[in-house]
Amino acid sequence: MDSNWEILTTGVGGKTTLADHLSTLKPGSRIGVDPALLSYSESKNISNKIKKNNIELVPITTNLIDLLWSDRPGMSDDKISFLKLELSGISLKEKLVQVREMIKKRGGTGLVITGLDQIAWLFNLRGSDIDCNPLFYSYSIVTNDKVSLFVEKEKLTEEAVQNLEGVEIFPYADIFDHLKFLSKSSEETKIITDSVCSWAIVDAIGTENIVEEYSPATVLKLTKNKVELDGMRNCHIRDGVVSVKFFSWLEKELLQNNMNLKIGECEAAEKHLEFVKEQQHFVGKSFATISVVGANAAAGHYSPSKGSDALIDINQIYLIDVGSQYLDGTTDMTRTWHFGTPTGWEKECFTRVLKGFIKIDDLVFPSGTTGYVLDPIARMSLWEAGMDFFHNTGHGVGSFLNVHEGPIGIGIKPYFNDFGLKAGMVVTNEPGYYESGNFGVRTENVCIVVDKETPHNYGGTKYLTLESVTLCPIQAKLIMPSVLEPKEISWLNNYHKVVWEKLSPHFEEGSYEYEWLSRNTAPI
Amino acid sequence: MDSNWEILTTGVGGKTTLADHLSTLKPGSRIGVDPALLSYSESKNISNKIKKNNIELVPITTNLIDLLWSDRPGMSDDKISFLKLELSGISLKEKLVQVREMIKKRGGTGLVITGLDQIAWLFNLRGSDIDCNPLFYSYSIVTNDKVSLFVEKEKLTEEAVQNLEGVEIFPYADIFDHLKFLSKSSEETKIITDSVCSWAIVDAIGTENIVEEYSPATVLKLTKNKVELDGMRNCHIRDGVVSVKFFSWLEKELLQNNMNLKIGECEAAEKHLEFVKEQQHFVGKSFATISVVGANAAAGHYSPSKGSDALIDINQIYLIDVGSQYLDGTTDMTRTWHFGTPTGWEKECFTRVLKGFIKIDDLVFPSGTTGYVLDPIARMSLWEAGMDFFHNTGHGVGSFLNVHEGPIGIGIKPYFNDFGLKAGMVVTNEPGYYESGNFGVRTENVCIVVDKETPHNYGGTKYLTLESVTLCPIQAKLIMPSVLEPKEISWLNNYHKVVWEKLSPHFEEGSYEYEWLSRNTAPI
Repeated sequence: MDSNWEILTTGVGGKTTLADHLSTLKPGSRIGVDPALLSYSESKNISNKIKKNNIELVPITTNLIDLLWSDRPGMSDDKISFLKLELSGISLKEKLVQVREMIKKRGGTGLVITGLDQIAWLFNLRGSDIDCNPLFYSYSIVTNDKVSLFVEKEKLTEEAVQNLEGVEIFPYADIFDHLKFLSKSSEETKIITDSVCSWAIVDAIGTENIVEEYSPATVLKLTKNKVELDGMRNCHIRDGVVSVKFFSWLEKELLQNNMNLKIGECEAAEKHLEFVKEQQHFVGKSFATISVVGANAAAGHYSPSKGSDALIDINQIYLIDVGSQYLDGTTDMTRTWHFGTPTGWEKECFTRVLKGFIKIDDLVFPSGTTGYVLDPIARMSLWEAGMDFFHNTGHGVGSFLNVHEGPIGIGIKPYFNDFGLKAGMVVTNEPGYYESGNFGVRTENVCIVVDKETPHNYGGTKYLTLESVTLCPIQAKLIMPSVLEPKEISWLNNYHKVVWEKLSPHFEEGSYEYEWLSRNTAPI
Repeated sequence: MDSNWEILTTGVGGKTTLADHLSTLKPGSRIGVDPALLSYSESKNISNKIKKNNIELVPITTNLIDLLWSDRPGMSDDKISFLKLELSGISLKEKLVQVREMIKKRGGTGLVITGLDQIAWLFNLRGSDIDCNPLFYSYSIVTNDKVSLFVEKEKLTEEAVQNLEGVEIFPYADIFDHLKFLSKSSEETKIITDSVCSWAIVDAIGTENIVEEYSPATVLKLTKNKVELDGMRNCHIRDGVVSVKFFSWLEKELLQNNMNLKIGECEAAEKHLEFVKEQQHFVGKSFATISVVGANAAAGHYSPSKGSDALIDINQIYLIDVGSQYLDGTTDMTRTWHFGTPTGWEKECFTRVLKGFIKIDDLVFPSGTTGYVLDPIARMSLWEAGMDFFHNTGHGVGSFLNVHEGPIGIGIKPYFNDFGLKAGMVVTNEPGYYESGNFGVRTENVCIVVDKETPHNYGGTKYLTLESVTLCPIQAKLIMPSVLEPKEISWLNNYHKVVWEKLSPHFEEGSYEYEWLSRNTAPI
């Protein structure tokens, strides 16, 4: 950029916020803004902060930058395909019944959906307009008698069109005219939307309508159906096969083929991708792979770039955080590995993190408990020694949808307290520990929240626990057994037994992969 | 009451709420209410709920019941005495500096205090207008240059008056006139109060002033000073001596003096009071003693009445929850005891509760963590077996003030998430388990939140832990050692070592009490 620009950093670690910066402008300023590029809640938040200095936001529906932008690329024309009932589990028709029930219960007559994953979920459609997320640009309106989808019709596959019977399809850009018309159609009209939609949407429907925190589609999507849960279990078996291929390949290269300090972080990630591409139903990555060695692993969710990436070193900890989109589910796994001899301190850190991981995986809790209050259980064993990690313990996971799916999760984000965990929800469990400039450890599984039979049933409460669906050994070499309690050792041995039973049939007896799996799932 | 009245139950376990009931009245109703008897937040809450039916609350400052109430007893003329600096730790003058700093920081020019414990704390005064709470009816106004106390002057002891130099004293009822005058005194006037004050107070100061959730006095009072903490430790030694006298007396009566099924729940409570009255600085009970046997202990915070109370039976669990006000601190303790042979099931319940109790007592956590998120740690061992308890794990404790002091605590009340725990705060730790119609168990200590040295200090965070100040054996007979982890057994033995060291010097070697204490603090 030339010197006409001053860059202000915002967001995590940023030096200011948009609202704070705007409130330093000259009192009386009127700030033009494209209301389609600002969420309604953020516009309210900014307006509240700047109004005390007599500054206001002015919506300008013709984006002035767009007018100047002559060589702007067009919108993606990637195809949108239909997700068959044997993969989605519930038809559009049934989902509409559930959504309309919730609209009615909340006192609305209609719903405008702007969340792309909500739309993909409702219509059982998937696209590829956004890297790693199988979504497509669109809007939707659901009323008691109509349902419309705003998307360029030519993007839809023939199968998709056939499965949208009864759905009115309009061009993407027509949403605003439809909303203006709809909101004036009757005195009784009350359209629901959620507060993450753009200011332009709320402006179009009018604020006399209902802006809620969570759309019915968001709420319904949280709890996965049986088909989705089976898919989640199945794709994790395939993902587990990939993990065995990947780790045994890497071990063989480093220890037998003399490739220490010759394989880059990116090359390892590419090899992983090569293995996962062989799998049935594989669609693409669910996020940019984090394949990191030594100090790079301490940088949290950093991912390397080819050329500037480090070489994998058997004397340093290696960490891979990788996930895929399959037609039947979404995966997200982290494993920390040492191909040489870890130090005692590295083992202590790994083991304290593992204790938190096991405590969460093994926990029994009443249905409806939020991940917000369960978070400290993942940290207790670190806190004991004055250690901690500065990210959440886990996030919700979509079903062949976003790998980070809100608003549930285990951690300190206030909205993790908004919905209690229920059977059928899917979350990750991923505590870690990071020593800046030195190393990082993290262990992550995707888990399904499942019903748990308990010896008692106090107060008639239903109890839940987590079922790990991720299948990959946890490296025993990094464990300090004296730090584990007997029941934690049982947990580990039992987990490895399951990994062995589910993955070993996929490898030939005597192969390197088979032997690697056998060694790495042996009881400690 | 005669048949003109219909009784509607509200509150915990109630069938309705005041707001819900009022919204069923005829649309257009205008409901008269004495605004001095309704908190501002409750009046807003009710008004919001009933306005959709076009119903409104109308403040009537002349209470119509009071006009009819001819034989109404006058207000208490109990004396209000001064709490010396060697007991309060910080003078009124110093507290005023802190309060005024917070008023300024919040953009106010004055503060009206209506919380009686806030006033008692600020002025270092204590009264006895309310059972178990050493408070006196009063109001206070603090501005930058003035401080006034609204209380009948003749209630103050001479020493109290001498220590209120610079404080303007006005009759209790004059507060409203003063507030009206104050709020109109200048354009810049911004008076702060908290939302639990009465509607009448907010009406008097005008809503253009600042109504906050927590008064500066509430916030400052949360963290106890060194003198208060030393007092808390000291009064718990005296309270521990009483516990030993009480439990050894009860054991001797039941097992040696043939008094099984001859001592009532109330008689035991009275005996406890007899012992505690002998102690230095004792002022009174901090709440109605819960002395209960068998099924009565399952009724949670129930307390027996003389005549209808049960007899203590060596074949049933006995539970006592008792606390006192001392000049140097406030106590609150629960112990569960079996004088015969407990069943395996009773032992399992007691031990699972104890595990949660130890986990909380032994926990290390970062400064600022809230009791809201720590609560599940007290329940994990119960949840594992499908068990739970339906009350909070702990509450804040005042310093020779209310035994339940908000807004901190360990538990599910949303406001327990409003303030992080800091060194110097005082909370109880009291998990339980209750089997309706059969028995109840609960173990409770008062704990000071203290700094904890940890081997590491990740991210420069300060770590905290709890220091139990309650000194009374936990009955080993009720413990199933196989359910405890080795470090839980160490915790118990270490706690009993402390109890023995602090209490045994107060008993004569060879006495029944001394032997009882020795037996009940022996390592398991």
